[in-house]
Amino acid sequence: MSSTPTPGTDGPTGTDGPTGTDATTATDALAAVASDAPRLDRSLAARDLGAVTAAVAALDTAALVDALERLAPRRRAVAFRTLPKGRALEVFERLDASLQGELVRALRDDEVAGAFAALDPEDRVSLLDELPATVATRLLDGLPDADRDLTSAVLGYPAGAVGRSMSPGYVTTHPHLTVAETLDRVRDRVADAETVYTLPVVDDERRLVGVVSLRDLIAAGPGALVEGLRVEARPARASEDAEVVARRCADLRLLALPVVDDEDRLVGILTVDDALALLEEAESEDQARSGGAEPLRRPYLSTPVRSLVRSRVVWLLVLAVGATLTVQVLDVFQATLEQMVVLSLFVPLLIGTGGNTGNQAATTVTRALALGDVRPRDVVAVVAREARVGAGLGLLLGLLGFVVASVVYGPDVGLVIGLTLLGVCSVAATVGGAMPLVGKAVGVDPAVFSNPFISTFVDATGLVVYFLVAKAVLGI
Amino acid sequence: MSSTPTPGTDGPTGTDGPTGTDATTATDALAAVASDAPRLDRSLAARDLGAVTAAVAALDTAALVDALERLAPRRRAVAFRTLPKGRALEVFERLDASLQGELVRALRDDEVAGAFAALDPEDRVSLLDELPATVATRLLDGLPDADRDLTSAVLGYPAGAVGRSMSPGYVTTHPHLTVAETLDRVRDRVADAETVYTLPVVDDERRLVGVVSLRDLIAAGPGALVEGLRVEARPARASEDAEVVARRCADLRLLALPVVDDEDRLVGILTVDDALALLEEAESEDQARSGGAEPLRRPYLSTPVRSLVRSRVVWLLVLAVGATLTVQVLDVFQATLEQMVVLSLFVPLLIGTGGNTGNQAATTVTRALALGDVRPRDVVAVVAREARVGAGLGLLLGLLGFVVASVVYGPDVGLVIGLTLLGVCSVAATVGGAMPLVGKAVGVDPAVFSNPFISTFVDATGLVVYFLVAKAVLGI
Repeated sequence: MSSTPTPGTDGPTGTDGPTGTDATTATDALAAVASDAPRLDRSLAARDLGAVTAAVAALDTAALVDALERLAPRRRAVAFRTLPKGRALEVFERLDASLQGELVRALRDDEVAGAFAALDPEDRVSLLDELPATVATRLLDGLPDADRDLTSAVLGYPAGAVGRSMSPGYVTTHPHLTVAETLDRVRDRVADAETVYTLPVVDDERRLVGVVSLRDLIAAGPGALVEGLRVEARPARASEDAEVVARRCADLRLLALPVVDDEDRLVGILTVDDALALLEEAESEDQARSGGAEPLRRPYLSTPVRSLVRSRVVWLLVLAVGATLTVQVLDVFQATLEQMVVLSLFVPLLIGTGGNTGNQAATTVTRALALGDVRPRDVVAVVAREARVGAGLGLLLGLLGFVVASVVYGPDVGLVIGLTLLGVCSVAATVGGAMPLVGKAVGVDPAVFSNPFISTFVDATGLVVYFLVAKAVLGI
Repeated sequence: MSSTPTPGTDGPTGTDGPTGTDATTATDALAAVASDAPRLDRSLAARDLGAVTAAVAALDTAALVDALERLAPRRRAVAFRTLPKGRALEVFERLDASLQGELVRALRDDEVAGAFAALDPEDRVSLLDELPATVATRLLDGLPDADRDLTSAVLGYPAGAVGRSMSPGYVTTHPHLTVAETLDRVRDRVADAETVYTLPVVDDERRLVGVVSLRDLIAAGPGALVEGLRVEARPARASEDAEVVARRCADLRLLALPVVDDEDRLVGILTVDDALALLEEAESEDQARSGGAEPLRRPYLSTPVRSLVRSRVVWLLVLAVGATLTVQVLDVFQATLEQMVVLSLFVPLLIGTGGNTGNQAATTVTRALALGDVRPRDVVAVVAREARVGAGLGLLLGLLGFVVASVVYGPDVGLVIGLTLLGVCSVAATVGGAMPLVGKAVGVDPAVFSNPFISTFVDATGLVVYFLVAKAVLGI
């Protein structure tokens, strides 16, 4: 690996150097973990540093990172310190920022300074976010001037903005340069560039006036002018939300997206691999929230049980408080229940089916929103469709419920069950379909608004429908 | 756009030609949809072909594709036929395969043949999968020989294999060639290549012996040999599962992954944008299944209500049949319920909380599985953690439930509620955490095994715990 800043990610092996230290395929790497990772664990338990060194050396970089992420923090630091310097930097770079932060506190100052300097500016910023302010300041002060400037530029943007995730290492060209001159620039600056496949084209005031692909440069002759090859740039503003920009980069299938400031001056570039990392994190967040938990900030097996409890208990409490609504509804209808205890047998089935119907609708619409197939202003169309879908599902299930419940508990109960299923499915699908759009419109992540909340709401509504139908049909 | 095969996706504007027909940024495009798409809809309703042509011309390609996907099939065909030929091809390429299939049936044979020939081989195969066999055969027979061979090569792999999704358009180099010679090859073949940024290196028998990045070629001098620049290739086998390979490509942050046959001979290349499309589809499938529905095969607003009902009814029925278990459990304890109707008030709250706890655990573990942070053989570690997390959550919620229910319904009922919450949360988190791993181990998509099934199981178990605790505490 070269020294600061680290080379970009254009190489066919991503962040690996061209020496190909990861000489195995991914499947081989998995096999290696299966056999060598337990050996590492045993050697650490036995405090046998020689064996630790051997076990670490037997793992390729991907497998080693994987094995380290599963260790307890103290053991992780011990294993890490057995690595030779070059390898240590390579491994450090690939660790989750939360684990980098922990390691930093376990290493000597000079080791830390070296590892910190070897990171890309945007990765340095992620690590700084994990560290106490005093440590962060000391690390920043220890950087060479040029690196500190690059890092400060990234640090200047608010958390969540794409300015924080972009790379300030890019190679520009000018409209009046030729292909040959541009390729010379690329050759000179390739070591410091995050990517050389998409080159921003800037004017004399560094204002972005287009991009040109290396592909098009090579396809044109060496004498062609960049002017004739550049295309419209579709830049992002540095203050834009990082997830939104990453999604755009992925949707438009771009390898890199230039980032500009408010005066259209180029400040950085977001590459597709950084976009992928952003989307992966956003996806984890959405999934956690749709399951009613706060996202974890680190790999599952290295998250303490205490943190797991903390990530879930608040949502669970909120939902439980919401669910006391069902207790109140049932309390209101307690007289009806006492007259006919058989009605209580169907409560879990009916509210469960309502919850499932609502979740189906919410999941479908949330996904359609994420893919851009649906927008908040489609709310009328969506509600109309979901009402029809819910009624259709309710008819099918209601008919079946009527027949089965009639046979077992008599036609009166059968009719109550059938009609309730029709009502509950219609309401649940409509509400479930509308909720993600409402969430999006008021600026709340649709995933937060989805499954657990819909279940709670549909539970209470379903019970009201149930007892109203029962009172009407049974005359009680 | 050039003619068959279409140029690759290396350009900074993705599949757009360098003429930059999409001269607006993505945000502008959204604004354009907002104003011009309704105009398109109105013109179609009025059967005013002149106005349709104008509305279509006012939209950029991305916005037009978006608008077309929201139209009813017949109107989509009308709008599509107003497009000039070059633009029609460009738009056709970008439509979902399901919509391409519908359009094909509405167009004249020569129009279809042109659009079909303009597709990439792997996209042709997606379209063929949507068409009746007779139409598919006729289209294939109409292709020029070279294109038919490329398409047949892709068609030869089973559905779901990466061979079906790879591109057969790549540029190779040889170890004994120089950088200058390789760049000449690139220049000659750039028009037909899906990517030129990752070049597979093959020996004289077309066996893959590495890859070299265009970046490294440019950084080295023109006289350097490919031999010294190639790195390990990490190829995929053509028969491997497409989703697995796409995930590997994204995880390793590679721009392209070479695909080989069983004799290690190069047969194609999977680029990161094709990998992204595969992952997007897989993600849609997982999300639909985790919400208890079958994935849609087309954009939401163009899916008929009938198909939406069909995609959900089977799962809903399966879950409802599973939920009859709760009716049976309650039936067993009906005598207890009759003695103390107040117990029935808490049924939705208790089983709801159990379901939420189980879903939290399942979502967290499913995500950790998807990211590779957890593997099926970690099942013991995961179950141990989730049992502790569940007990912790159960203690907190149980204490709170005890206090609140004691105040409102007396200490006996409070004790029953508190102990039940402790038991239900412990069981739910343990089961919820184990299910995705069990699913993965037996080869079922973890998402299928998750939320709705866990809810149903936890509902029934929770009721048993509830009534056993009630009988023990209340002595009934």
